[in-house]
Amino acid sequence: MIGGGQGAFIGAVHRIAARIDDEYDLVCGAFSSDAEKSKASGILLGLPESRVYTSYQALIEKERELPEDERVQVLSIVTPNHVHFAPTKMALENGFHVILDKPMTFSLAEAKELEKVVKASGKRFCLTHTYTGYPMVKEAKEFVSAGKLGKIRKVYVEYPQGWLSTFLEGDNQKQAAWRTDPGKSGIAGAMGDIGTHAFNLAEYVSGLHVSKLCADINIVVEGRKLDDDGAALLKFDNGASGVLIASQVAAGDENNIKVRVYGEKGGLEWKQDEANTLLIKWLDKPAEIWRTGGGYLSSFAAHNTRVPAGHPEGYLEAFANIYRNFALSIKADMEGKTPEKEWVDYPGIEEGVRGMAFVENVIASGKSDKKWTDFTI
Amino acid sequence: MIGGGQGAFIGAVHRIAARIDDEYDLVCGAFSSDAEKSKASGILLGLPESRVYTSYQALIEKERELPEDERVQVLSIVTPNHVHFAPTKMALENGFHVILDKPMTFSLAEAKELEKVVKASGKRFCLTHTYTGYPMVKEAKEFVSAGKLGKIRKVYVEYPQGWLSTFLEGDNQKQAAWRTDPGKSGIAGAMGDIGTHAFNLAEYVSGLHVSKLCADINIVVEGRKLDDDGAALLKFDNGASGVLIASQVAAGDENNIKVRVYGEKGGLEWKQDEANTLLIKWLDKPAEIWRTGGGYLSSFAAHNTRVPAGHPEGYLEAFANIYRNFALSIKADMEGKTPEKEWVDYPGIEEGVRGMAFVENVIASGKSDKKWTDFTI
Amino acid sequence: MIGGGQGAFIGAVHRIAARIDDEYDLVCGAFSSDAEKSKASGILLGLPESRVYTSYQALIEKERELPEDERVQVLSIVTPNHVHFAPTKMALENGFHVILDKPMTFSLAEAKELEKVVKASGKRFCLTHTYTGYPMVKEAKEFVSAGKLGKIRKVYVEYPQGWLSTFLEGDNQKQAAWRTDPGKSGIAGAMGDIGTHAFNLAEYVSGLHVSKLCADINIVVEGRKLDDDGAALLKFDNGASGVLIASQVAAGDENNIKVRVYGEKGGLEWKQDEANTLLIKWLDKPAEIWRTGGGYLSSFAAHNTRVPAGHPEGYLEAFANIYRNFALSIKADMEGKTPEKEWVDYPGIEEGVRGMAFVENVIASGKSDKKWTDFTI
Amino acid sequence: MIGGGQGAFIGAVHRIAARIDDEYDLVCGAFSSDAEKSKASGILLGLPESRVYTSYQALIEKERELPEDERVQVLSIVTPNHVHFAPTKMALENGFHVILDKPMTFSLAEAKELEKVVKASGKRFCLTHTYTGYPMVKEAKEFVSAGKLGKIRKVYVEYPQGWLSTFLEGDNQKQAAWRTDPGKSGIAGAMGDIGTHAFNLAEYVSGLHVSKLCADINIVVEGRKLDDDGAALLKFDNGASGVLIASQVAAGDENNIKVRVYGEKGGLEWKQDEANTLLIKWLDKPAEIWRTGGGYLSSFAAHNTRVPAGHPEGYLEAFANIYRNFALSIKADMEGKTPEKEWVDYPGIEEGVRGMAFVENVIASGKSDKKWTDFTI
Repeated sequence: MIGGGQGAFIGAVHRIAARIDDEYDLVCGAFSSDAEKSKASGILLGLPESRVYTSYQALIEKERELPEDERVQVLSIVTPNHVHFAPTKMALENGFHVILDKPMTFSLAEAKELEKVVKASGKRFCLTHTYTGYPMVKEAKEFVSAGKLGKIRKVYVEYPQGWLSTFLEGDNQKQAAWRTDPGKSGIAGAMGDIGTHAFNLAEYVSGLHVSKLCADINIVVEGRKLDDDGAALLKFDNGASGVLIASQVAAGDENNIKVRVYGEKGGLEWKQDEANTLLIKWLDKPAEIWRTGGGYLSSFAAHNTRVPAGHPEGYLEAFANIYRNFALSIKADMEGKTPEKEWVDYPGIEEGVRGMAFVENVIASGKSDKKWTDFTI
Repeated sequence: MIGGGQGAFIGAVHRIAARIDDEYDLVCGAFSSDAEKSKASGILLGLPESRVYTSYQALIEKERELPEDERVQVLSIVTPNHVHFAPTKMALENGFHVILDKPMTFSLAEAKELEKVVKASGKRFCLTHTYTGYPMVKEAKEFVSAGKLGKIRKVYVEYPQGWLSTFLEGDNQKQAAWRTDPGKSGIAGAMGDIGTHAFNLAEYVSGLHVSKLCADINIVVEGRKLDDDGAALLKFDNGASGVLIASQVAAGDENNIKVRVYGEKGGLEWKQDEANTLLIKWLDKPAEIWRTGGGYLSSFAAHNTRVPAGHPEGYLEAFANIYRNFALSIKADMEGKTPEKEWVDYPGIEEGVRGMAFVENVIASGKSDKKWTDFTI
Repeated sequence: MIGGGQGAFIGAVHRIAARIDDEYDLVCGAFSSDAEKSKASGILLGLPESRVYTSYQALIEKERELPEDERVQVLSIVTPNHVHFAPTKMALENGFHVILDKPMTFSLAEAKELEKVVKASGKRFCLTHTYTGYPMVKEAKEFVSAGKLGKIRKVYVEYPQGWLSTFLEGDNQKQAAWRTDPGKSGIAGAMGDIGTHAFNLAEYVSGLHVSKLCADINIVVEGRKLDDDGAALLKFDNGASGVLIASQVAAGDENNIKVRVYGEKGGLEWKQDEANTLLIKWLDKPAEIWRTGGGYLSSFAAHNTRVPAGHPEGYLEAFANIYRNFALSIKADMEGKTPEKEWVDYPGIEEGVRGMAFVENVIASGKSDKKWTDFTI
Repeated sequence: MIGGGQGAFIGAVHRIAARIDDEYDLVCGAFSSDAEKSKASGILLGLPESRVYTSYQALIEKERELPEDERVQVLSIVTPNHVHFAPTKMALENGFHVILDKPMTFSLAEAKELEKVVKASGKRFCLTHTYTGYPMVKEAKEFVSAGKLGKIRKVYVEYPQGWLSTFLEGDNQKQAAWRTDPGKSGIAGAMGDIGTHAFNLAEYVSGLHVSKLCADINIVVEGRKLDDDGAALLKFDNGASGVLIASQVAAGDENNIKVRVYGEKGGLEWKQDEANTLLIKWLDKPAEIWRTGGGYLSSFAAHNTRVPAGHPEGYLEAFANIYRNFALSIKADMEGKTPEKEWVDYPGIEEGVRGMAFVENVIASGKSDKKWTDFTI
């Protein structure tokens, strides 16, 4: 693991996700750019001192030299955005598979460069767009892709949060500080942090690609340096339209990501606060409540579920599904087998490039007087 | 009553609303432009033949000549949009109070003309934006206006319906036919029919006025002549921003109008499918479930409630609240008293003009290449 | 109307219910045992003084002598329980149809006597068990009776309220005072007031009859004279079992009546706080959300609905359905026609007798050391 | 681990729960009474053959002889009920801490015997009543115990499931087969399997003890050998009363365990299908939605939460909380420290004895003609 030292939120989440299905062992880490802190974190995590490094460069260089059956195979990179590209590139080029936290890079240019690196490396690459790990999100995708709603006409996606309603970065709150710092997050705040999740969820479930958009991007809290709020009208490649909302100043909201897709015959709705439910709505018959664990679900949902219906699985299990599928895919590769289609259903480089293109396009649109901005990569 | 003959949906709703609180008697009507149908409808409703007229002109002329204690006092006008302006104008100019179904007129020009007529007439005028009749919507408005959320930053309003997902007007379905006919509805379909409701609800609850907007207006169903779908980014006069969604092709949705308002300190949420609940969300304490009938509610909610908490009141009661408040205001006028503030809280000519301005501005924005269209009246 | 003077809650509800569908005119009343109050109430309601009476006896005697086309046809009796039997008997015996508030009588003996009176009178009799007037409750009954759940195995019904959590009768609160007074309510408090509703709902929806029960009956609030809480284990005539809960000390609850029925193939659930939803659950496929106004509903639900799906109907409309169906049945009788099956689906004398038997049996069981008490009438 | 071989449901759950917080390593196991299956399971789980045993006796004997820093410290016992007592007793007597799946033993006699063993052993013992591991269940307990609801008056608990609605054991479905077999489960089916969970949850949250009960116990599905359904009226030691429902034939229900507690001032409600919400209801002010991750929660909820509010934690995390707290308590012991009060808040031997007493008392009451059965241990 690179990043994720003491006090980091998402690093701990990655480690739990990796442990849940017992497909990974934590064997080494460079947990902080601060050498002392990296050491301390590694020891707390039970690693031998020899495998705790003071920089990602050191980690990659030293691990590469270890015997194959000893050295780390997959690197989880959970640093802030501005330290995504370089360690990922170096890791891939030195023969490691990589799991990277989103958004993928600091800029679209880095993203496109990384795409080339991934392709050249022959290594697997995974981007943790967590919400696509939920079994009922996978079911939604399957449902749409099987044509059960007919041609898709509308996609609404929203991610309202309230935690940045005040000038939290003024109190040096760690999570707020880097997310609102253009030097660490890039050109976007809310749009990069949660807008990319919403965008990814909309494209994943609908199976469509955004082709143009029209955005209103705001800094609501005085003194903040990056957007903390925004919305965009969307056009998709099949002619469908939609709306994307992402806000960090929706005071009182938690992490209420929600997606709705409507086709000619019906619609569907999924939201994180009832994560184990997929609502299917029909023009002319009763709506249906599809539930994690239901015997009627597709192999995509079934494969990503651990306990019987009614025992809720949550965010950590969704995260773990991504980790597990990535591991299963790598193991299949190593055994010379073709991984199952359910295993390779994890977000990767294409989603990462599109996510960074979303960031650049949505911010550009926010600054433009023109209504529509083409979605360019 | 003018309009609302057999087979009409909204006329029957108006009559029930008028009856619920026993403030009105139905004494006369011109229920249809078809004389036979008007007669038949009136007789079914138990009116004497002498008070059933074959045109609104005849009604107004004849009723005007009746002795004061016999003649109708308030006219409900529930015709399609293109027959709103003329009968309303004539009624007001002949000394009758008017309750008119929304949207107010066929065009903004008519709306502005009507505004003058109302002011000159000295008569009361009411526009049935039903949703503002719900007790918890009134509570929401009070809550915001008392400053409990702090300065308002965000307003999201949506009205997804699914009933026009198919080319219903091709089957000559009466409700669909006139609503999708530019000769009867005006320049807007969904935006006039339900977009105006959403717009009105957003302005009512937030206490703000839209100052500019950016719209995406669509005809989704092939062959349709007016928009059946749209969304708009909104800017408000206090600097807040928002999103408005209105769609008649959200297949499987009923009449899911919903509004969310966020301020510096918290947010609130109301939706018709849980109409007796107002959700209040806070930055730093548990969300609260405010309920119709609660002893802690304001006089606005209390005055508009009939039964104890937990016995749901619905759409017809919301409608009846508008009718009742209009009657109470007129009775106070007649008794030379100042009506209570809760009584005059019904939608009127200002809301009607703003609604028609919304229609024209949102359609203009939909056709424009510019991002923002100023909200002009 | 007999009873229901100023300050009475349920009288006003009956009058609204009667008005909603325009099948009734209020023509006379004896609104209070206090002559002055009766007069004042009648005048407020717009009645001519000549039709406002100072006692129910006077009302019945005088109205009987009026010409047929003038005199009242249906009497609504909305007095406290101890004044149910005598006016109802007198009304029926003098040729009036009767709508009576629940519970039917002061005692089971009165109920059985009343049954004879009804049968002998040839007049129609209706008991306002409101909850069976909800369209989705009617749909639930139809669903079960069509065998769609298979043989019924379990029935859970509950009616938790919180309003009597304190010694409200000590403050002379009118509603609390008579309901907790054995001289006015009879032998039961909560079990008579809301337990009978729960019992009726369970039998109505399941189509089953309780054959024995085992009750725990409590007075929770110190100083109270009648039960304010209880629960009963139930056995039904087909071998099914169940649980009934009724409490007035469920602090913080409103009027959360809810029924669940399970058969071999699935279950259903209805609760007043989502009154327009009927949840249908299946063993092996997704649960379904049946909604008031849905095109797929039976004639029983459709007949009892006024507005399109998504515009909620509530408690007053449920009440109005009972009034309307009673009127339609009487009108059919008068026209020599057979009323439709949907019209005669209102609660009547049989439900009233069973309700009073429930009261006596459940209170007897509460006092018994034996586990099971046979349900005797 | 003892039990939990391939195909077992709960063994896998225990292993995930143990992994989530990285407080345990799986070092040895006797996964099945079938030696081959035990071996195969152990190898699949990545254990060295030397630490995979063919019986629990062998495991305990061999592990005991290993050097202290190598041998297992805590044994998870996840066998069917009839193989709970003996391995637990042997493990404790040989110096191992034990985590045991519920219900604790085959009979109350065994439970009482085990209580003595635990006390004599000086080892820690934990019983996995999962639901008390949910953060909002812990918050509910804290809320009640702080007196915020006033004196407790009512406790309703229910656990409806539908999975045994058919004669599943006839198809040799593994989970159904042993649970319905008196030789493996003991004298109770549903009451042992899920009734004990409901009972434990009710006592945990309310802080009260059941003092007598009156039960209706049923075998609904023909051919079944143990109860698959039941309900009980409850009396608590402080005078409160309540109802417990447990059914495995509630067709269409998943694992809908739910508890409601009412006191003089308000009530609370928690249910697994919205596990991250605790609803607090008040007599005279709006109900509140307390949420996992809220900054206003007690140390009990906060300590048992991993991710920010709105990212749902579920069943596996609740299970993991029990495992983690048990480990933290043992580590504190080993370090000679007093464990924090949040750590020792895991279910133990007292809960186990009371659970088995519940099983025997509820089954006895089911067979009795007397209404009340004293809760005896």
